[in-house]
Amino acid sequence: MEGAGDQVILSANLLRLPSEPPTAEVSELLLQRPGIRLERILSTGQASPPGFWYDQAEDEWVAVLQGEGVLQWEDGQVTALRPGDWLLIPAHQKQWVERSSVEPPCIWLALFAPRQA
Amino acid sequence: MEGAGDQVILSANLLRLPSEPPTAEVSELLLQRPGIRLERILSTGQASPPGFWYDQAEDEWVAVLQGEGVLQWEDGQVTALRPGDWLLIPAHQKQWVERSSVEPPCIWLALFAPRQA
Repeated sequence: MEGAGDQVILSANLLRLPSEPPTAEVSELLLQRPGIRLERILSTGQASPPGFWYDQAEDEWVAVLQGEGVLQWEDGQVTALRPGDWLLIPAHQKQWVERSSVEPPCIWLALFAPRQA
Repeated sequence: MEGAGDQVILSANLLRLPSEPPTAEVSELLLQRPGIRLERILSTGQASPPGFWYDQAEDEWVAVLQGEGVLQWEDGQVTALRPGDWLLIPAHQKQWVERSSVEPPCIWLALFAPRQA
């Protein structure tokens, strides 16, 4: 990237889609430091497999940047995330992806971080 | 938020604007954990004061979600960030905000993290 002096500056666009829509969910690691990972996740209609729950050891801050992603919680309630919506999913808060939009694909931004002390 | 079981789930929308446009840049802390901060920054035309440089001890991953933000580097080159554009600014890479869009306001998402070991 120009203008970066002597250091390499990583850059890209969060909304850019591959020329061919992926057939499976794609995660891209944007930044990793001790204890944290920032990922862009591209979904094209995928949902979690039946019976699957996320039960994560880390807190997850997650936003939808494009499209729609719908999470279902252990108690059966659902939360639809639309562009700009974010939420913090505490560690071990069980949830799964009920559905994600196909057109446009659902673009998630997720920051995994140590749980609140 | 409904569906969150017994735990409080923080949520909001990254694109939501205050009813009155702020007269100064506004930073909102979205997530903080040891060593990292995730912030939404809302600019409405602000630029860095003349002669001011950011010279940060931390790496900064920054994206523009709405509007346009223009960074200038120490060597005089500029980088315009438009919706979805992100870059990783290494610690001590001097830069300043040359300008930010007024209409629409510029919405930045910034993750401050320890520099690469």
